[in-house]
Amino acid sequence: MSRETDDLELRERPEIEEDLEDFALSEDYSLNPDYVPMVVDALDRGDADRLRELLGALHPADIADLMGFLSADDREELVPHLDPEALAEILAELDTEIREDVLEHVPSAILAKALGEMDSDDAADVVDDLEADKRAQVMAALPETERAAIETTLAYEDETAGRLMQREVVAAPQFWTVGQTIDHLRRESEELPELFFDVYVVDPAYKPVGAAPVSHLLRAQRDTSLAAIMEQITEIPVDMDQEEVAYIFDKYHLISAPVIEPGGRLVGQITVDDIVGVIQEETEEDILALAGVSDAGRDASFLGVVRSRLPWLLINLVTEAIAVTVIAPFQPMIAKIVALVLLMPIVSSVGGNAGTQALTVAVRAIASKELNAANAARIITRELSVGLLNGTAVGLILGGGLYLWQHDLKLSLVVLLAIIANLFVAALGGILAPIILDRLGRDPAVSSSVVVTFMTDFFGFLALLGIAALILL
Amino acid sequence: MSRETDDLELRERPEIEEDLEDFALSEDYSLNPDYVPMVVDALDRGDADRLRELLGALHPADIADLMGFLSADDREELVPHLDPEALAEILAELDTEIREDVLEHVPSAILAKALGEMDSDDAADVVDDLEADKRAQVMAALPETERAAIETTLAYEDETAGRLMQREVVAAPQFWTVGQTIDHLRRESEELPELFFDVYVVDPAYKPVGAAPVSHLLRAQRDTSLAAIMEQITEIPVDMDQEEVAYIFDKYHLISAPVIEPGGRLVGQITVDDIVGVIQEETEEDILALAGVSDAGRDASFLGVVRSRLPWLLINLVTEAIAVTVIAPFQPMIAKIVALVLLMPIVSSVGGNAGTQALTVAVRAIASKELNAANAARIITRELSVGLLNGTAVGLILGGGLYLWQHDLKLSLVVLLAIIANLFVAALGGILAPIILDRLGRDPAVSSSVVVTFMTDFFGFLALLGIAALILL
Repeated sequence: MSRETDDLELRERPEIEEDLEDFALSEDYSLNPDYVPMVVDALDRGDADRLRELLGALHPADIADLMGFLSADDREELVPHLDPEALAEILAELDTEIREDVLEHVPSAILAKALGEMDSDDAADVVDDLEADKRAQVMAALPETERAAIETTLAYEDETAGRLMQREVVAAPQFWTVGQTIDHLRRESEELPELFFDVYVVDPAYKPVGAAPVSHLLRAQRDTSLAAIMEQITEIPVDMDQEEVAYIFDKYHLISAPVIEPGGRLVGQITVDDIVGVIQEETEEDILALAGVSDAGRDASFLGVVRSRLPWLLINLVTEAIAVTVIAPFQPMIAKIVALVLLMPIVSSVGGNAGTQALTVAVRAIASKELNAANAARIITRELSVGLLNGTAVGLILGGGLYLWQHDLKLSLVVLLAIIANLFVAALGGILAPIILDRLGRDPAVSSSVVVTFMTDFFGFLALLGIAALILL
Repeated sequence: MSRETDDLELRERPEIEEDLEDFALSEDYSLNPDYVPMVVDALDRGDADRLRELLGALHPADIADLMGFLSADDREELVPHLDPEALAEILAELDTEIREDVLEHVPSAILAKALGEMDSDDAADVVDDLEADKRAQVMAALPETERAAIETTLAYEDETAGRLMQREVVAAPQFWTVGQTIDHLRRESEELPELFFDVYVVDPAYKPVGAAPVSHLLRAQRDTSLAAIMEQITEIPVDMDQEEVAYIFDKYHLISAPVIEPGGRLVGQITVDDIVGVIQEETEEDILALAGVSDAGRDASFLGVVRSRLPWLLINLVTEAIAVTVIAPFQPMIAKIVALVLLMPIVSSVGGNAGTQALTVAVRAIASKELNAANAARIITRELSVGLLNGTAVGLILGGGLYLWQHDLKLSLVVLLAIIANLFVAALGGILAPIILDRLGRDPAVSSSVVVTFMTDFFGFLALLGIAALILL
């Protein structure tokens, strides 16, 4: 596919800087695939000027994107050409496994400088990716305050509010007026976070009692008190799981929220742009888990990909090997009625399909907290009824088709009953497996598929062959 | 499961308002399942006072959530108890199918009042859900300006930037100073959107040339010109697909972005909180499509659920019926070597699994624009190598296990070769089907599964039985 780009030389090549910027991105703002070989070409020729030009036309997020399309070797060659200021932004954007790879090729001193430019949460993420040796070197090269901030952030558990938050917040006492607050902000301009959306109003113990959105500060009269314009806040405990944090942001349409310590003291804030990443990450995890893949990441090595998939294939091999044992006692019957050999895969496949449908819907409903004790009975009843009706519909069609072909009413009846039974089992497994796994505190996305596929294969074969034995023999 | 809540009467029931608020939400801020039967009970008793108390303790987003847990009948009874101001917020939060149901029970006059309280994008969404008769009534009851705003929004295609944006924006000319801008905002306070994050800087033709984040306005000195503090903007064309808009927001960590008409004029803005919903919606679509379910929504009726699943089951039935035809010519051999009957489902199941893994990863990579012409050749090569290696590993384990049981070296060899062949086909289909479907302009999530499952079943049976015929007969 990348061969298509070989004739690039024949097309007009954009040379002027403005043209380059236009050329770099496709209409949908994704990186233009044709841009990648231009960078690779400059790397191959060791043309530092051309590289500076090419990289200069890109936003750091696009350079991060570009790195994802390069081979590991090309990426390694590119790193020294990155200017140290851009490096901070690029590191914050990169996927973990590419970042780990890039970090190996950045000297500790330059890395320390880049970390100094980053928000505390992003800097901590990068440090967390470093190997022990390098981490010690880099931390030693950091100024005391930044080192302390990173260490504090890293002390919180991964995937919690503490790791997600930035420690930089703007807070003001309740009794201040809008005018006092704006004057303070103008004075302290240098110390403020680059962007903020709320001024948190705190009591004398530094506990947040409300938030004044900056757009309200801007339009209020100078003598209005903060207490008069502040809004209710939703406090995020520092140890809350990031998935819960994302749920709260989504539900209440929050732009930012204060993070508090167990005692209630304000320690940081989370902003919605961090949440967008979390939502992507969490649903991605669900999608992959449902397909039986561990997340190997965008640029996983060949062995990384094997490791992310082989275990699931082996689990599937074992459960399927157990499921087919149910066929063994029926072998003599199958040798006599060979049409059953064609029907077995159909019954198990349709059952597996129906089970996947039910469990996917259930897993998502649980993840978005739309399925719980309050409506479980109603949803389970609905799923089982759907299973029976779909089973009847599919069974009648398959049985009918079979009759036109074989003119064997009994065989058609066997198929009809087997499909109904298996789609009922599929519905039962598809809805109950995720609910039960969730109650047991397991992630329903991870193991539901294995359970349900086993059920629909085992019972599919058993239903078809058992009913055949009863009716046909 | 909901039976668990029957003993609620025995527990202490929170009566005081503050207690109710605490009781209403679980620790993770989701609605407490025990709250639902309390509402149902008050509905059954027709106790309007108690209902007002119960609903008063909830945020509108939680009332919307509550409605999802109620049966259609209970919901219908609840609607008249909702106060008209809260109704606007609740309607904006409800899932489409519940909203359609609720809208039927709200009188047109009350609805028109509620629409007046909503942002233009939310109001248009609600109007779009109304049936023709009611829509005409409601629109007639709206003030002229609001009706016009809703009509303009509805003129944009569904799922585009135009439908997502709010028409309310704050714009200022380039030559204004920070002080002039703040004074203007204070004067026009009544006319401004409730929340905003950027003041768009526009040229005389009302084309946006930059954006001043409100936090920068707050801390800049009054005599600074807007041109000096404004930042680069990413303009969103009004007809851009919402999926692209979400991609841009995610990539550049945008909080808000100006929406422009074809001529370049500023017509509205999109804010990141709208994008969180879009991202949820789009990944949800992918998850469901991969599982072969159309989105029936949280509260779909029994028949709605059947409609969302049966067509996919029937497609699966047809493709599977075609796949098994490959078995027919081998029936005499199967009657002789019945062990093949046990091996067929294993070979096809492991193949299906490997295909699902590969295609899920590919579909996600395409959706997040991480797979395109620039790296397709590398990714395809990687997938095929993974298929061969995983096939060899699984084949050796299955073949080895089979040998321990049957002591038939030739049969084990057949299984080994069949698994390698099928996992190679799975890798080929899993990576090529989504890429080709995407090139053809189809959604790769929707039909890839069908194609790949067909391939792994067809070739799985063919490989096993064909190789068996060559080696064993």
